[in-house]
Amino acid sequence: MHSGKSFQTIGIISRPRRSDLAVVVPSLLKWLKERGIKAVCDGETAAVLAQDCETCSRQNVADEADLLLVLGGDGTLLAGAHLAGPRGIPILPVNLGSLGFLTSFTIDELYPALEDTLAGRAAISKRAMLSAELERAGKVIESQRVLNDAVINKGALARMIELELIIDGAPVCRYRADGLIVASPTGSTAYSLSAGGPIVHPSVESILITPICPHTLSDRPLVVCDSCRVEISLLGGADSVFLTLDGQRGIPLETGDRVRITRAKEILKLIHPARKSYFDILRNKLKWGEA
Amino acid sequence: MHSGKSFQTIGIISRPRRSDLAVVVPSLLKWLKERGIKAVCDGETAAVLAQDCETCSRQNVADEADLLLVLGGDGTLLAGAHLAGPRGIPILPVNLGSLGFLTSFTIDELYPALEDTLAGRAAISKRAMLSAELERAGKVIESQRVLNDAVINKGALARMIELELIIDGAPVCRYRADGLIVASPTGSTAYSLSAGGPIVHPSVESILITPICPHTLSDRPLVVCDSCRVEISLLGGADSVFLTLDGQRGIPLETGDRVRITRAKEILKLIHPARKSYFDILRNKLKWGEA
Amino acid sequence: MHSGKSFQTIGIISRPRRSDLAVVVPSLLKWLKERGIKAVCDGETAAVLAQDCETCSRQNVADEADLLLVLGGDGTLLAGAHLAGPRGIPILPVNLGSLGFLTSFTIDELYPALEDTLAGRAAISKRAMLSAELERAGKVIESQRVLNDAVINKGALARMIELELIIDGAPVCRYRADGLIVASPTGSTAYSLSAGGPIVHPSVESILITPICPHTLSDRPLVVCDSCRVEISLLGGADSVFLTLDGQRGIPLETGDRVRITRAKEILKLIHPARKSYFDILRNKLKWGEA
Amino acid sequence: MHSGKSFQTIGIISRPRRSDLAVVVPSLLKWLKERGIKAVCDGETAAVLAQDCETCSRQNVADEADLLLVLGGDGTLLAGAHLAGPRGIPILPVNLGSLGFLTSFTIDELYPALEDTLAGRAAISKRAMLSAELERAGKVIESQRVLNDAVINKGALARMIELELIIDGAPVCRYRADGLIVASPTGSTAYSLSAGGPIVHPSVESILITPICPHTLSDRPLVVCDSCRVEISLLGGADSVFLTLDGQRGIPLETGDRVRITRAKEILKLIHPARKSYFDILRNKLKWGEA
Repeated sequence: MHSGKSFQTIGIISRPRRSDLAVVVPSLLKWLKERGIKAVCDGETAAVLAQDCETCSRQNVADEADLLLVLGGDGTLLAGAHLAGPRGIPILPVNLGSLGFLTSFTIDELYPALEDTLAGRAAISKRAMLSAELERAGKVIESQRVLNDAVINKGALARMIELELIIDGAPVCRYRADGLIVASPTGSTAYSLSAGGPIVHPSVESILITPICPHTLSDRPLVVCDSCRVEISLLGGADSVFLTLDGQRGIPLETGDRVRITRAKEILKLIHPARKSYFDILRNKLKWGEA
Repeated sequence: MHSGKSFQTIGIISRPRRSDLAVVVPSLLKWLKERGIKAVCDGETAAVLAQDCETCSRQNVADEADLLLVLGGDGTLLAGAHLAGPRGIPILPVNLGSLGFLTSFTIDELYPALEDTLAGRAAISKRAMLSAELERAGKVIESQRVLNDAVINKGALARMIELELIIDGAPVCRYRADGLIVASPTGSTAYSLSAGGPIVHPSVESILITPICPHTLSDRPLVVCDSCRVEISLLGGADSVFLTLDGQRGIPLETGDRVRITRAKEILKLIHPARKSYFDILRNKLKWGEA
Repeated sequence: MHSGKSFQTIGIISRPRRSDLAVVVPSLLKWLKERGIKAVCDGETAAVLAQDCETCSRQNVADEADLLLVLGGDGTLLAGAHLAGPRGIPILPVNLGSLGFLTSFTIDELYPALEDTLAGRAAISKRAMLSAELERAGKVIESQRVLNDAVINKGALARMIELELIIDGAPVCRYRADGLIVASPTGSTAYSLSAGGPIVHPSVESILITPICPHTLSDRPLVVCDSCRVEISLLGGADSVFLTLDGQRGIPLETGDRVRITRAKEILKLIHPARKSYFDILRNKLKWGEA
Repeated sequence: MHSGKSFQTIGIISRPRRSDLAVVVPSLLKWLKERGIKAVCDGETAAVLAQDCETCSRQNVADEADLLLVLGGDGTLLAGAHLAGPRGIPILPVNLGSLGFLTSFTIDELYPALEDTLAGRAAISKRAMLSAELERAGKVIESQRVLNDAVINKGALARMIELELIIDGAPVCRYRADGLIVASPTGSTAYSLSAGGPIVHPSVESILITPICPHTLSDRPLVVCDSCRVEISLLGGADSVFLTLDGQRGIPLETGDRVRITRAKEILKLIHPARKSYFDILRNKLKWGEA
């Protein structure tokens, strides 16, 4: 349970172009105002409103907030994690469509969940984030936090790529594959699962390395300690390769580029329904374990 | 064994930019000339020669040939299959690098293999080819033979795609995945194997359907009879999806496109070393079955 | 559709110890008698009846029948296949519990299915059976037809076993594994699927070889033509190994034993609901392809 | 590196019936005696000696030892781990045959490894052990430490079994499968790998749960934190089911039995060659990552 600190400002981001936002957001703003809580919306959210509200760019919506409310699916939540994680504020995720792995409140649960959160009764799942850095020619040219995964993969028309895995400075193995996924435990139920990776509980302090369509039959998913420094070096031969961070940004890679993944110092605080465990959500999403 | 028909014209194609061609090709042309056999080279092959030789575009190199000699790897052989298959002439594949699944003669075996072939002593493996058609808005806009596979997959930065599988006109199932591979038995040891598909012996009259990173855990590779008409319909939502035929050409797909795969009427005649079975080559390539 | 031949005698077998048989069978016998059709029940079925009926051992229940009615699940159907397959008579399978892959009529559909069958309107799926022979010290000591699979596996407390796969007399590879499944296409959705094998449509003329927990990572399921002679030789080292045929009989194996699998000359004729395709049943059973 | 404490007594166990022991052991005993170190052999080891030596049962061979020397393969090492783990003494494993995952010194390295160990220069890998308890009718009837895994599986002739997984008292899911493996990270490269599990580095504080031939397609390996209490309950229907601890002892299970796995308080100290990392051994054993 979260300590009962008072929330004075709530940032709100939402999935663009959801028609139901026009219904949800005005009454939400009213509800917050009645309780003396300031709301700051990002541009997408504000766009659905007839009335005025305090608005700023998505990038800055969490800057002065004590809580980030995410209205959308897992994709919107990942964007929110990049804002809330570094600032150390919790996320309250409300799903506008079908339940996600991460967005486990339904729209019907919005106000009860807000009430529980404001009253300090919310259940919080702490999720490790990863730090992903892209180094080119000895210089770090990109650096970002991810909640799920950093994915290196080839373009649709490219041939397989060759990668080297280096852990704590020591070469471990080479992959010839369509790509490689480096995931947090939270990300183990996202893309890594599709590529054949195991389910790793969020409490396991680990980093998961899952090849995508490996050309050597013996390549298996690998789970290493999250105190490791995991590096992926793109060896020669690729002409269309990308690094994708949490499925949101694609950065073209060049031969010799090195992607470095470590545990981020920030922890994401994710509010979830007290009555639903991690495994409850898994079972529901994966139709898993129905014997 | 191939019937002892006489070979009067041999087409030659080769993998571009291989420096060893400058050594191999001149003596090969001399060898053929001494035996009264006409050689026709494609542009890539001719480019390495100091001397003159009969040259034409790769597209036409098999037009008057009784045999197609392929100097290269599996990629060059696939290009050769598209030329030789429809014309019904056999391919003699000679590998310039490491042995391939399809190119099972080494460069040292070039002349013995040629002698066996000319003497009608060659072992020939008959390989079913597939016909791939792309239909858009009711019109067939692409049509090609493939030896290995037709692959539908998403670009590196796109989200998963949704596909429907239709067999003999009846909807079978829907896939949410990175893509789908429709392969011949010959193609079962190519990309499909990386995506988790089984090994299917070339004599099994079948078409293999293997999803790439399926988002539903229960999707399994599927083997159907090659008298089936396999159709894949690209459902909505995709913004960067491609059809790739034998790993060589990428064709952008649009929502609503339908890819139709059937057994081609042509059979590829692939010459292979008499002493090496299909399983010998598998064991060598896959380091497979080494207990 | 089955030709409209008249059925004069129907054999009936059922799953032992099902209490609902006491309700179903008497009215079934009455229904058949009213239509002048002779019914022969096996001992299990007769045991639930208060009244008399023509009874014989399960082994002989199909001897004079034109049709075999199976009341039970897939296990009972496999037993029925061993009786009906060699005699060339069709099976009408009615499921007493949840739908099976093979037993696709519900108990509510019993009489409509019988009417369709008697009227020659039944849909029949032809299923290849396999012949399994066990050879020890040069002599065939067991021989049986199977519809699904022949499984070689180790006892729970034994270590892994070593097997050699021989196809058409040529050694193919060795397995170090818990066991090996040799399955027909029909068996591809049974145990082989649990062990990681592909789904093979019944119309693909093939035999499927799937290792169980292989200790070499590169072992993959293998699909070969059903004109092959597949042999499995049990190499040394095993102390508790069994051959199980269609999951029903376990035969202890000894080092040096050879299990030989070929396509049986008999075809099982399996009646199924005309409106449900093979893929409909797959989707239902596997929750498969639900995108 | 191990602290330079002096070793006064060394226990020795070895793999039974290895003829090379008759050569190795006498000179080893002489070598130890010359250095004033007392050696205690188990019965198997003593049996190969012409001379006398201090002997006791394998069960007690580590009781007064400061170091346990294991001559054999991974199986012998597992037996040694059960002795050395609870007593907190390190194991020096020397392989008599091919290198194992755990026994990574060759026989040629025996004396250099001993010298390094006695001099306090040995590299030590700390391996978590698991505690496995079998509870029947509310009473713990078996309790043992395992280094690799606790395996529940069915006999060769039994049908699948039904199991329920309970974590920290909460039901997680049910399995219909041939069995279930609960493994330490060390055990991730043993049986769990054959059943499709990931490779988990020994430093990841986790317990790995891998189903064997699951009948539901969606069952995936699961990695949970090793502070969890993992319980497996055997539901009804099984007639021949066994619990096997580190592949060494098979205990018949009954319906309703509950197997409880937690991290053991003891840590196994495993001496390994300083120049070979965990990943070096993996690559060698799995032919893994050879791109």
